Amino acid sequence: MFDFEKIIEIIAVIGVIAFAISGALTAMERKFDFLGVFIIGFTTAVGGGSLRDIIIPDRDVFWIVEPIYTYMAIIGSVLAIVFRKKLEHLRKTLSLFDTIGLGLYTIIGVQIGIQYNLPGISCVILGAITGTFGGVIRDILVNEVPLVFQKEIYITISILGGSIYYYIYWHYSQDAWVEIISISLIIMLRLIVVIFEISLPSLYKTNKTE
Amino acid sequence: MFDFEKIIEIIAVIGVIAFAISGALTAMERKFDFLGVFIIGFTTAVGGGSLRDIIIPDRDVFWIVEPIYTYMAIIGSVLAIVFRKKLEHLRKTLSLFDTIGLGLYTIIGVQIGIQYNLPGISCVILGAITGTFGGVIRDILVNEVPLVFQKEIYITISILGGSIYYYIYWHYSQDAWVEIISISLIIMLRLIVVIFEISLPSLYKTNKTE
Amino acid sequence: MFDFEKIIEIIAVIGVIAFAISGALTAMERKFDFLGVFIIGFTTAVGGGSLRDIIIPDRDVFWIVEPIYTYMAIIGSVLAIVFRKKLEHLRKTLSLFDTIGLGLYTIIGVQIGIQYNLPGISCVILGAITGTFGGVIRDILVNEVPLVFQKEIYITISILGGSIYYYIYWHYSQDAWVEIISISLIIMLRLIVVIFEISLPSLYKTNKTE
Repeated sequence: MFDFEKIIEIIAVIGVIAFAISGALTAMERKFDFLGVFIIGFTTAVGGGSLRDIIIPDRDVFWIVEPIYTYMAIIGSVLAIVFRKKLEHLRKTLSLFDTIGLGLYTIIGVQIGIQYNLPGISCVILGAITGTFGGVIRDILVNEVPLVFQKEIYITISILGGSIYYYIYWHYSQDAWVEIISISLIIMLRLIVVIFEISLPSLYKTNKTE
Repeated sequence: MFDFEKIIEIIAVIGVIAFAISGALTAMERKFDFLGVFIIGFTTAVGGGSLRDIIIPDRDVFWIVEPIYTYMAIIGSVLAIVFRKKLEHLRKTLSLFDTIGLGLYTIIGVQIGIQYNLPGISCVILGAITGTFGGVIRDILVNEVPLVFQKEIYITISILGGSIYYYIYWHYSQDAWVEIISISLIIMLRLIVVIFEISLPSLYKTNKTE
Repeated sequence: MFDFEKIIEIIAVIGVIAFAISGALTAMERKFDFLGVFIIGFTTAVGGGSLRDIIIPDRDVFWIVEPIYTYMAIIGSVLAIVFRKKLEHLRKTLSLFDTIGLGLYTIIGVQIGIQYNLPGISCVILGAITGTFGGVIRDILVNEVPLVFQKEIYITISILGGSIYYYIYWHYSQDAWVEIISISLIIMLRLIVVIFEISLPSLYKTNKTE
């Protein structure tokens, strides 16, 4: 057995840094000012988890009670500013930081839903919200159509990975490796999708015109 | 007397389906992909009620604890996909599903405010939020100016219907027919407004240029 | 010593009126209809405080339990309609109402964070959220890039003023004058910034092109 709370914390800290880098890089690409880079970095990093915590009854919003997350979001933004060129390349070619964040946050979201004894479908939705909502806010703030609605396959991967984790958790094993495998699966699937430019089949006969 | 909780539940389920249809139809009109249609359907269906539940102290967000609402939102979206042509016609000519949702959700919002002993003005605002916020999120996600801000008369009808319900509830009767009449009143008023293209008088002497 | 709760209340009421005026004037400039002016006024007035109250664990959203704030938001909007010409001039030249609201709401946000024993960095962020989020919603609803992201120096002032208040509160004095001085400092700094058109140094060598 393993310490559920402890693992969630470690995963969350790495996820916060990854999403903060993703947000700060996006803000720098749009020539946001100094503080704007930190604000977008912070918002991207804590957005998904905040919405999850607001939706879950009686749960404290994670960064408000534990300042470590705010500091990590600041550190992530500083890393993005300092190593801008190298990281920007990884962001553009692989959506790397968004992808890492998606994997980590999806599984955290599902885990926390399980902790609160919520129904399975709610756990999976919470995972998808935690994994994607930070990016949605980021895109709205820099005035873009959220990436997640242009490429719904990202949410599909999050829902798929979250469902697999939920299923294995209740039917086979609650060991830490289940989390690590589920997170890796989401990250790998999304990297494959990004590299091979896969998208969902369309509902419409004609080509997309929008 | 009647079972307050039970009636709220039944009304809420019908409202979720109506709003999910409204959201899914809008998403299909914008050529959203398969999952995008479900996401917009779900968001439209639960958006207003979620904001209401987040604002009300100590109240669980309704769909997170009761999976029935999530399933109903999925069913509503499936209905929209399957019967797309017929439903789309009703949506365009009468804003039918938005209208039904507005009537049902407004009264639920006021009822829940009453349950929590909130001040009258807060109950009426909660009704308007519950009835209109799902549509606001839908319009923001498909990148439009929210319909409700173009045609403020919709909110006016919601506030009017909610106030009448609140007044009758406290001064005359708490029977189920008060709800049914109030809901019907809102739906009828809005259908009249849509059909006859009525709008609020302008504050400005010149014509609207925006 | 002084009555903490009482002072927060008085400051909050003045802040609500100032922000409601700011929102209603913006809505009238965009030729919003009658009810639209009230909705934008109300949203601007309660937006920041609502997000703060939603984020803070176990805290009631302020306007839902105390109808006085809703009435004040309505009064602010009425004032904006009646004295439109005079107030519009002050809004345009000095961003006056936004500025007063920023000062008052920032300090309230920090105070409430202190009341709930939150970490210092969370208190300062809560102050910035309370002071600026109403304006962010206002700008999104009238379909503009939020002012606060164009001129990040406004948030800088909020964070600076909030930090100074937090520091003095814990290290020197908890008297009422600390609040009044901190609020005045924020208002003065922002007026100076508006009048002299000061902005933050850019992260980029080239000129902003966006």
